[in-house]
Amino acid sequence: MTVKIGVVGYGYWGPNIVRNFAETPGAQLVAVSDLRDDKRALVERRYPGIRATRDAREIFAATDIDAVAIATPVGSHYELALAALRAGKHVLVEKPMTADAAQARHLIEEAEKRGLTLMVDHTFCYTGAVRKMKEMVETGELGDLYYYDSLRVNLGLFQHDVNVIWDLAVHDLSILEFVVPHKPLAVSAVGMSHVPGTPENLAYITVFYDSPFIAHVNVNWLAPVKVRKTLLGGSRKMAVYDDLEPSEKLKVYDKGITTTPSPEQIYQMLVGYRSGDMWAPQLAGTEALSLETRHFIDCIKGKTQPVTDGAMGLGVVEILAAASQSMALRGQPVDL
Amino acid sequence: MTVKIGVVGYGYWGPNIVRNFAETPGAQLVAVSDLRDDKRALVERRYPGIRATRDAREIFAATDIDAVAIATPVGSHYELALAALRAGKHVLVEKPMTADAAQARHLIEEAEKRGLTLMVDHTFCYTGAVRKMKEMVETGELGDLYYYDSLRVNLGLFQHDVNVIWDLAVHDLSILEFVVPHKPLAVSAVGMSHVPGTPENLAYITVFYDSPFIAHVNVNWLAPVKVRKTLLGGSRKMAVYDDLEPSEKLKVYDKGITTTPSPEQIYQMLVGYRSGDMWAPQLAGTEALSLETRHFIDCIKGKTQPVTDGAMGLGVVEILAAASQSMALRGQPVDL
Amino acid sequence: MTVKIGVVGYGYWGPNIVRNFAETPGAQLVAVSDLRDDKRALVERRYPGIRATRDAREIFAATDIDAVAIATPVGSHYELALAALRAGKHVLVEKPMTADAAQARHLIEEAEKRGLTLMVDHTFCYTGAVRKMKEMVETGELGDLYYYDSLRVNLGLFQHDVNVIWDLAVHDLSILEFVVPHKPLAVSAVGMSHVPGTPENLAYITVFYDSPFIAHVNVNWLAPVKVRKTLLGGSRKMAVYDDLEPSEKLKVYDKGITTTPSPEQIYQMLVGYRSGDMWAPQLAGTEALSLETRHFIDCIKGKTQPVTDGAMGLGVVEILAAASQSMALRGQPVDL
Amino acid sequence: MTVKIGVVGYGYWGPNIVRNFAETPGAQLVAVSDLRDDKRALVERRYPGIRATRDAREIFAATDIDAVAIATPVGSHYELALAALRAGKHVLVEKPMTADAAQARHLIEEAEKRGLTLMVDHTFCYTGAVRKMKEMVETGELGDLYYYDSLRVNLGLFQHDVNVIWDLAVHDLSILEFVVPHKPLAVSAVGMSHVPGTPENLAYITVFYDSPFIAHVNVNWLAPVKVRKTLLGGSRKMAVYDDLEPSEKLKVYDKGITTTPSPEQIYQMLVGYRSGDMWAPQLAGTEALSLETRHFIDCIKGKTQPVTDGAMGLGVVEILAAASQSMALRGQPVDL
Repeated sequence: MTVKIGVVGYGYWGPNIVRNFAETPGAQLVAVSDLRDDKRALVERRYPGIRATRDAREIFAATDIDAVAIATPVGSHYELALAALRAGKHVLVEKPMTADAAQARHLIEEAEKRGLTLMVDHTFCYTGAVRKMKEMVETGELGDLYYYDSLRVNLGLFQHDVNVIWDLAVHDLSILEFVVPHKPLAVSAVGMSHVPGTPENLAYITVFYDSPFIAHVNVNWLAPVKVRKTLLGGSRKMAVYDDLEPSEKLKVYDKGITTTPSPEQIYQMLVGYRSGDMWAPQLAGTEALSLETRHFIDCIKGKTQPVTDGAMGLGVVEILAAASQSMALRGQPVDL
Repeated sequence: MTVKIGVVGYGYWGPNIVRNFAETPGAQLVAVSDLRDDKRALVERRYPGIRATRDAREIFAATDIDAVAIATPVGSHYELALAALRAGKHVLVEKPMTADAAQARHLIEEAEKRGLTLMVDHTFCYTGAVRKMKEMVETGELGDLYYYDSLRVNLGLFQHDVNVIWDLAVHDLSILEFVVPHKPLAVSAVGMSHVPGTPENLAYITVFYDSPFIAHVNVNWLAPVKVRKTLLGGSRKMAVYDDLEPSEKLKVYDKGITTTPSPEQIYQMLVGYRSGDMWAPQLAGTEALSLETRHFIDCIKGKTQPVTDGAMGLGVVEILAAASQSMALRGQPVDL
Repeated sequence: MTVKIGVVGYGYWGPNIVRNFAETPGAQLVAVSDLRDDKRALVERRYPGIRATRDAREIFAATDIDAVAIATPVGSHYELALAALRAGKHVLVEKPMTADAAQARHLIEEAEKRGLTLMVDHTFCYTGAVRKMKEMVETGELGDLYYYDSLRVNLGLFQHDVNVIWDLAVHDLSILEFVVPHKPLAVSAVGMSHVPGTPENLAYITVFYDSPFIAHVNVNWLAPVKVRKTLLGGSRKMAVYDDLEPSEKLKVYDKGITTTPSPEQIYQMLVGYRSGDMWAPQLAGTEALSLETRHFIDCIKGKTQPVTDGAMGLGVVEILAAASQSMALRGQPVDL
Repeated sequence: MTVKIGVVGYGYWGPNIVRNFAETPGAQLVAVSDLRDDKRALVERRYPGIRATRDAREIFAATDIDAVAIATPVGSHYELALAALRAGKHVLVEKPMTADAAQARHLIEEAEKRGLTLMVDHTFCYTGAVRKMKEMVETGELGDLYYYDSLRVNLGLFQHDVNVIWDLAVHDLSILEFVVPHKPLAVSAVGMSHVPGTPENLAYITVFYDSPFIAHVNVNWLAPVKVRKTLLGGSRKMAVYDDLEPSEKLKVYDKGITTTPSPEQIYQMLVGYRSGDMWAPQLAGTEALSLETRHFIDCIKGKTQPVTDGAMGLGVVEILAAASQSMALRGQPVDL
């Protein structure tokens, strides 16, 4: 069986989706829709055998299409995904899943009711580095998790419809959902816009959990240098993930502290330091998106739940929404 | 005239103070006090001509001492500095100035009343990189200031008496007081302790100002790698300050955005990008502490106000105190 | 007038040549030849309107083709380029131009005789960094040139037909031909093969000039890390070119020495040090190969000499040949 | 038994020797000599109990001195060390051991005849990184050694008496003597002076061995940036040693090639690539010179041969001398 694919949106990310589905075994790319003439012309030049259409509804109505990938601005995700599901199509939707949690819940419901696969394109969860971090958490190699601390800044594309949190922090929130076994309880976020009439271009987000684990994400569209640096601290080992390193993206440090009760004061601990080797594991080199499109096809065929399913997409949207709310309150924590 | 110096405390930082005063023209090191026998033995071996005493009061009482440097834990700063001022000595006190703002105000008052020099050892304000940043702000080279964003983490010495904010963030707060012309209005901070019975070992602090400028400081004693990276963003240029770089500690980027009103929507701006040269100015190579001890002597002799005077020390303590308060409220902003 | 292009060879580099000519204004891609069936199938899938042929002679014979790009192993360059020129086609030939200097001279002659454009694909000469270095040499910004020192190593593709010099050092030699105004006089090279039956996989090459300028190139296919670092030292300034830096590939240091005659000894100089700012100029972001294919078309249309013409290609081949000869003599210098 | 130490020379390196002997258990610093009044004044201020003398002969003649450290320019090493040995003193001599091989051989003879310890101050052999490299070679972790490739450049102190090889390459040659089990056979070196009347300020040296191992050293006093980067390639693993890294100075890569005989051609090998983890071992943090002064005392007391004995010092001098000779012949190899 071949899964026949339609893609809605051929803007920034759509071409990557299309290129990967074109090379995914078991998938066949059938149609692409985009509102812009030049984008459709591009599709036609690059993929002569594929239908390029203006109206996404033609894709939903097409009887030769089994699954739809939606790569449009976040504001339209809900409506398009809903239409696709109602037309009986499996759906892969660009992140963030929807503009609010109610919409995400509705899509999950709709997919479940119809027995359709609903997957969110949280690409980072398919990278070698993030999968290795998850593995180290699950095997206990890192010990108890202490913190996740991410710096994700660059001179970026200001967006008009969403703030920097929905554009950049969404990556960290999906990694957190994927890697961290604890449950987020509340969010505190602050941010600022430096251009009147545009959404916040920098933000600092803290997520509190049901354990002594804390996550912090620093995102900025107005930084002079590009930085992608994440620390994941545990009681046994600590990892540094730098996505811009050409090789050795993930470094694992056998470092930490040891604590012994202080003889003087019962409530106080004596803290010692442990310092050992550093280790950069060899990571899988496959393009994350290629792994992801294969996974989408596998889930459809095997009727299994995707790694980045609707529930994970919802979890990310809930934190994004709470962060935006906290930001309006200058950092006051908002419960999840 | 030679200013005769007594130093209280020969622990972690005291030896640096002593070494620099020993080489400062116009200063003469006379006595050092420390409670620990081994520390006094060290002083005697290294500086045969200098009195080593157990009791700081001997230093305050000595008629051949004009000025006192206090390099003890923060909890004792107030009491010792007050005693020194009351004994008619000029005072250089280690940072943070005091454990709370009331104490700092009292010391300022006491020094003013007696016409004595009161200076706080905010060493970073005497480094070539920070002085160049201040210069670029003052000449308008950076344009309107947008943000200050600092990552200051390492596997650090856990302290029992103060949390990581009072140990590490104090550096950034002094740089902010020194470099930024805006007035801080409120602070939001979150933090966490991973060792029961010890203060917070990581913290994220945001300072709000009376302008569209925002400051963020990320400090952590439990990081596997040492990072000292500060971004200072302005409307014309942006700087990256990396204190661990052996050379080119400060890089200035001729990058930013341009904004024009959108023709479609009156409230929206079209954002464009500017990208130009990067420039790493040659920085003064003098040891900051050496510059600082000279400045202390100059202020005493010339009866001028130090760059890092009591008022700046107080400003820093006020933010530290507000940050600790906000931290107890999980990030709720605390007004200054 | 549109220049109609045929490309011979669709292996490692050919696809880049084809892709760039496909987007070059004034050029029209007409045919591609490759001996391998799968490569031709790839061409047909990617460029439906283009002829894919097994035999390069069909390209030379085609009356609708004006110019030919040759992207085959170096051993076949001479024969193919000669056939193309004799068929009246302009020629862009992959670097190194030929396997020996006599072949290169013959091609230059043949092209001149027929009034055809002959260009060598020394892509680095079209990068922003190398063009900026040339500009700094020409304007005198670097002062008198002292040395060129390049480290170009990685875990690389061992080749069977050529040694590491012909694969990696060829880049540095073309940069030297392009940037340095002095005349090379002799070459000393040493190298070693660590796999019996394969050519040298590491080599160290020194080029002597008719001035106190010296060039050194260190190439290695067996290095655990990829390094691309070039120092260009002058009497006024010095540049560091790191092609792996995502931004700031070129850094210019206002550093150097000052010399004054020693009072004691007439033959001796007192050497002082100058240390100033570092500056990373904004570089043109255009893909080098795209600039190069446009330049090829412009040269054909305007009947002008290419920047990387046959003479430069010959200069590079002469040094490559001399280096291989010196290598066989364990470093004995070979005159050019 | 306490070994009583005299130090000759208190210029650039002498103060480090003195400071370390002052803290070495089993050693007692007795006297320091220097021709310059200000240097002797410095000694007296820093070490009140120690004799400071103008004439080294007083040190050799002193009956309360057992061992002498010589930290003077290389031109005087032979004469001073010889006088010390003849006076019955054990000798630690600064590197390079002597100005030529005959002198080094004579010192070895003289020390042997008298049963005295003769050690050369090749400090790098006492660093954690170099000792770990030696260990990895000895345990076979790196496999067969392929190459040693070192880049050691900076804007350095031009010296009038020796060229850059004797100043900088001496470090690499001592590491090679220490780490590499193969026997050096010949040297090819080229260099250049850019200041008339001063010795060569840059040089490229290649050392050939009695095995398919090759060493290359690139040294330069006129580089705009400081680089200390060494690659050590083996058949099983490869190491990168960067002495400027604050931590992780040594990185070990589980990378390399695999070779299988080509089915087509009996003389040709098919080369494949292996890529695995990277590992940065925790290194001993002790100051190398402190380890070295202890080792000197231990060798004197136990009558054992130092790790960096006269024979190693001689080996280094032989290569330095051959390299200087080859340099005069523009790279012609000189047999050892």
